[in-house]
Amino acid sequence: MTAGLTTAQLIEKHRPTLDQALDAIRTRAYWSPYPEHPKAYGAEGTGSLSAAEGQAAFEALRGKRFELDQPGNDGWVGAEVSPFGPELGIEYPHAGIGALLPAMRAAMPEWREVGAEARAAVCLEILARINARTHEFAHAVMHTSGQAFMMAFQAGGAHAQDRGLEAVAYAFAEQERTPVSAEWSKPQGKRDPLELRKEFTPVPRGVSLLIGCNTFPTWNGYPGLFASLATGNAVLVKPHPRAVLPLALTVRIAREVLSASGFSPDLVALAAERDGEGIAKTLAVRPEIRIVDYTGSTAFGDWLEANARQAQVFTEKAGVNTVVIDSTGDYKGMLGNLAFSLSLYSGQMCTTPQNFLIPRGGITTDAGPKSYDEVVADLAAAVESLLGDDARANALLGAIVNDQVKERIDAAAQLGEVALASRAVTNPDFPGATVRTPVIVKLDGAKPDAEAAYLSECFGPVAFAVAVDSAADAVELLRRTVREKGAMTVGAYTTSPEVERLVEEACLEECAQLSLNLTGGVYVNQTAAFSDFHGSGGNPSANAALCDGAFVATRFRTVEVRRQA
Amino acid sequence: MTAGLTTAQLIEKHRPTLDQALDAIRTRAYWSPYPEHPKAYGAEGTGSLSAAEGQAAFEALRGKRFELDQPGNDGWVGAEVSPFGPELGIEYPHAGIGALLPAMRAAMPEWREVGAEARAAVCLEILARINARTHEFAHAVMHTSGQAFMMAFQAGGAHAQDRGLEAVAYAFAEQERTPVSAEWSKPQGKRDPLELRKEFTPVPRGVSLLIGCNTFPTWNGYPGLFASLATGNAVLVKPHPRAVLPLALTVRIAREVLSASGFSPDLVALAAERDGEGIAKTLAVRPEIRIVDYTGSTAFGDWLEANARQAQVFTEKAGVNTVVIDSTGDYKGMLGNLAFSLSLYSGQMCTTPQNFLIPRGGITTDAGPKSYDEVVADLAAAVESLLGDDARANALLGAIVNDQVKERIDAAAQLGEVALASRAVTNPDFPGATVRTPVIVKLDGAKPDAEAAYLSECFGPVAFAVAVDSAADAVELLRRTVREKGAMTVGAYTTSPEVERLVEEACLEECAQLSLNLTGGVYVNQTAAFSDFHGSGGNPSANAALCDGAFVATRFRTVEVRRQA
Repeated sequence: MTAGLTTAQLIEKHRPTLDQALDAIRTRAYWSPYPEHPKAYGAEGTGSLSAAEGQAAFEALRGKRFELDQPGNDGWVGAEVSPFGPELGIEYPHAGIGALLPAMRAAMPEWREVGAEARAAVCLEILARINARTHEFAHAVMHTSGQAFMMAFQAGGAHAQDRGLEAVAYAFAEQERTPVSAEWSKPQGKRDPLELRKEFTPVPRGVSLLIGCNTFPTWNGYPGLFASLATGNAVLVKPHPRAVLPLALTVRIAREVLSASGFSPDLVALAAERDGEGIAKTLAVRPEIRIVDYTGSTAFGDWLEANARQAQVFTEKAGVNTVVIDSTGDYKGMLGNLAFSLSLYSGQMCTTPQNFLIPRGGITTDAGPKSYDEVVADLAAAVESLLGDDARANALLGAIVNDQVKERIDAAAQLGEVALASRAVTNPDFPGATVRTPVIVKLDGAKPDAEAAYLSECFGPVAFAVAVDSAADAVELLRRTVREKGAMTVGAYTTSPEVERLVEEACLEECAQLSLNLTGGVYVNQTAAFSDFHGSGGNPSANAALCDGAFVATRFRTVEVRRQA
Repeated sequence: MTAGLTTAQLIEKHRPTLDQALDAIRTRAYWSPYPEHPKAYGAEGTGSLSAAEGQAAFEALRGKRFELDQPGNDGWVGAEVSPFGPELGIEYPHAGIGALLPAMRAAMPEWREVGAEARAAVCLEILARINARTHEFAHAVMHTSGQAFMMAFQAGGAHAQDRGLEAVAYAFAEQERTPVSAEWSKPQGKRDPLELRKEFTPVPRGVSLLIGCNTFPTWNGYPGLFASLATGNAVLVKPHPRAVLPLALTVRIAREVLSASGFSPDLVALAAERDGEGIAKTLAVRPEIRIVDYTGSTAFGDWLEANARQAQVFTEKAGVNTVVIDSTGDYKGMLGNLAFSLSLYSGQMCTTPQNFLIPRGGITTDAGPKSYDEVVADLAAAVESLLGDDARANALLGAIVNDQVKERIDAAAQLGEVALASRAVTNPDFPGATVRTPVIVKLDGAKPDAEAAYLSECFGPVAFAVAVDSAADAVELLRRTVREKGAMTVGAYTTSPEVERLVEEACLEECAQLSLNLTGGVYVNQTAAFSDFHGSGGNPSANAALCDGAFVATRFRTVEVRRQA
C-alpha cells in the first residue's frame, strides 16, 4: 500500500481520470469515477475493501489510539460518541502547533517545485486510496454524523471523493491557464526585436486551515482540502470534535501517499483538539495560516471573515431554504419528492428546504385545485407514508446529530399549528440512537410573530408551511429571505411560465441556485459534483460555491521570472 | 460615432480580436491590437484622431463644463491643474449618489441577460473608440499625471487599452468555463436514468467602484473597470481629483457605446468629487457597492480591505522595490538599463526600483571588478549621461506630480551621502512644470538608522545605494523587504548560478515578480499586458495581480437553474 511511487508513475496512472474530470467540469454532463453502490467494492484483486472488510477495519480502530507521526504531538484527545449510541473510544494525537506549523511550511518549497500536474496526480492517488476504503469511511461518517449507512456511504464516500476530485480538476485547470514558460518577442521596427524568456510558477499562499463540520466531515471538507493541496499549500485539518475519525483517516492516507511519493507527509496534518479548546479561533488568525475553509454556524463564519484577515476565507454558513409552491402538473410526484427532501438525514443538511410558501387561496394541480390546508395535509401524509415503515424510516432518517436539533424539533411545535407531529422511531440495531421524523408547522406569512420563525434557520427536520397571499407574494418573500438570510437552495413548483419567470429572475438577482418542478429521483437538497454548483457564493449563506474558478483562483499566486533572451 | 449597433454586429466585429487576446493570455507571447506609435493614428478613413486632431480635441475640452447626462447630477466640481503648469479649467457634474446608484442597479438585469460574449463585444467597442482617440487621451493623461507626452501616449493610451482588453479576455474566459446549458443523465442500473436540463448564468455582484489614481488613471483603472463591466456589473468611476479628465472621457465613451448598443448608459458612471470631499470612503462601504478596485496609498488600501467588507476589494498599494547587484556580464548595459528605470516618469511608478543592494566588497563585471563606490558613481554617471540633454531629460522625466514628491527628493539628500544630486530641469514648452532628475543616496545596510530610510517607500526619483555584506546578505534583505513592505518588482544582476538560484527562491517564496539581468530595452518597471503579470497579489504591495483568473473570478457568481428533463 505504501510502496514508493514516482510522480511520473502517478501521473501516468491518474492523468486519464484527471482529463475526464476536466472534461466533465467543462460540459457539466454526468460523470463520476467513484461507484456509489456498496457492491461495487471489495471484489478480488481490486484492492478495495468489501463490506465486511470495511466494517472490520472500522471496528479495529475503536477503543484505540489513532497513531499519526506528526512533529510536536503533545498529548491525546478525543471523545467521539456515535449519534447512534456507541462511544468510539478513539484518541487522536494533540498537535503541538509550535512545532507542526514550521514543519508544514518547510514542506512547501518541494511541493511547489514539482509542479501542478504532479500535485494533481498525488491528490488523485490519495483519493483513490480513500475510495478503496469507502466501506470503512462509510462507518466512520455514519458514527460521527448520524447519517444512515447508505447515505454515509454515498455522500460521505463516493460523492465526497467526487467533490475532492472536482476541486483538484479546478485547481489544475487554474494553474495550467498560464504556461510554464514563454518566449516573448516584441517587434521594434527596423531595430532588433525585444526578446525575453519568461517562466511562470504557481506558488502557494501558505498553510491552509480546514475547519471541519459535524454533519458532513468529508463532503464539506474535501473541496477545500484538495483545492489547497493541489495548488501547492500545506493543509492543516481541524475536525469538528464530534467528527474527527473521517478526517483523521483522510489525513493518515494523505500522509502515507505523500511519503510514498517522496514528499514530506507534513503537507497534510491533523489538529484534533480537547473538548472546549476552541483551537479554530486561535489557528485561524495565525500569520502562517493564509487560507481558511469553513463549514458551520453563521456566527463563527462571520467571525472568521471579519478576523482572519491575513487569510483567504471560504465559508459555508447557514441559510433559509425556500420552496415556492404555485401549481404543479404532477401533484403526487411533487409531494413525494418534497417528503423525501424533508426526511433525508432528518433534514440535517444545509440544503434541506425549510419554508414551503403556499398561496392561502390554494394551488392548481393535475389532481384538481387544492386548498392551502389540503396541500399541507397531503404533504404531511406523504411524509407519513414515506416513513411509515420503521426500517425504511431508519434507513432514510439516520440519527439526530445532537441535542440542539432535538430541542429545535420540540420547540418548533410551539410555533404554530402542527400539521405533522414529529415521531420518535426506534432503531433496532442502535437502541441508543435518537431518530425523529420531520415536524411540519403551519404559519401565516402575514403575521409578524410568524416571521421570526420562518426567517431564521431552524436546522433539522422542521418545515414551515407558510401561507402567502399569492405567487407574487411568495416570490417577494423568497427574495427577501435570500437577501437577508441567504439560501443554499431554492425550489419551485409551477406550471405558469409567468411565475417561473418571476422565480428565476428572483434567483438570478438574489443569487441562489434553483431547482424547478422536481418530481422524480433528484432532490432539491442534492447536488452532483462536476455538474451542479453547491451554493452560489453570492448570498449570505456562503461566500463561495463548490466548485468554481473563484474557489481555487486565490489559493495560489503566479510568480514570473523573466530574463533577457 | 454613436449610431445604433446591435450586439450581433459588435460580436462579429470584435470576436476575432477577442480570440487573439484569449490566445495571447494562454501563450503569453507578445501581442497587442493597439499601436503604441503616435504615427499609427489619424490616417484618412481609419476614424482615429491624428496628432493635431487629438490635441485640438483636448484643447476644446479646456475651460468648459464636461457634460454627462447621468441621473441625479447635483452640481459641478473640478479644479485640475496640469503638473506641467496650466489649469485645465474643466468642471464635471457632481453625482447625486442617491439617484445614481439605483439607476445603475436597475441597468444590470438587461446587461446580465445579454450574456458574456455580447458584454465582451460591447467592452471591445468601448476600447476601440478610446483607441481611436489615443492622441486626445495622451494629452489628458499628460496634463493630469505629469507623464511626458510619449509615455502618456503609450502607457496612458495603447498600453492601458491593452490592460483593459486583457481584463475583458480573462473575464470572458472565466464566464465561458461553465456552459450556458447542459443535459445531465445519471444511469440508474435497470431503471430509467435521472435526467435534468441545466442552465448556468453568470450574474453580477452589484455596483463596482473604481477608485482612480493620480499617476496612472487609465493604466491602473482600466483592468478593474473592464473586468467588472465584462462580468455584468455596473461600474462607478471615482477618479482622483487631480486626474479626472482621462476617466471622464472614458466614462463618456462607455456611456455612448452602451446607449448605441441598446443598454442603459448608467452601467458606467462618473463620481467626480469636490476637493476634500473624500467620497471614496463613503462610497466604498455603501451596501450597493460589491466590488472595489483601488490603486494608491497603503493606508487607504488597508482601510478599504478592513472596512469595505460587503465588497470584493482589489488593491494595489505601496511597496519597496529592490534590485540586487551581484555581478554582471554587461556592466555598461546594466548601468544604462538601471539609469533609464530610475529616470522614467521621474521614478513616479509603483514599479520603479528604489533600493540597489550592492556588496560593500564590490562586484565582478565584464569590465573588471568594481568597488561599491565605483558602482554607485558609475550608476550616477549613467543617469547624468542619460539626462544630460534637457530636451531628452524632459521627454523622459515628465513633471513632478505633486509637492510631496518634490519634498521627498529634497529630504532624501539629508539621509546619507549624496552620490548624485537631483537637478531641476527647465521645460521650455511648460515653464510652470517642476522637472527633477533622480537623487541617488548611499546608505549602509548594516546601520539601523539607515534602515528606516530604505525600508520605507520613498515614492519619486529617489534611489538608495545600499551597501550590504554579500550577495547572500542582499538576498536576506530582499526577502525581508518583500515580506514586510511588499514589492511590485524585483530586479537582479548576477552571473553566478548560485546567486541567481537564491534570488529566484526568495522571489518564489516571498511572492514577487523578478526581472533578471535586464541590460537592453526592457526595464524592470515595465510590464506588457497579455504576457507579464503586474504585481503578484501575494505580498503586501498588492492583494491582486493584473491580470489573472483571481482578478476576475470573484466579480461574478454562477446561478444554476435545473429542471427535470
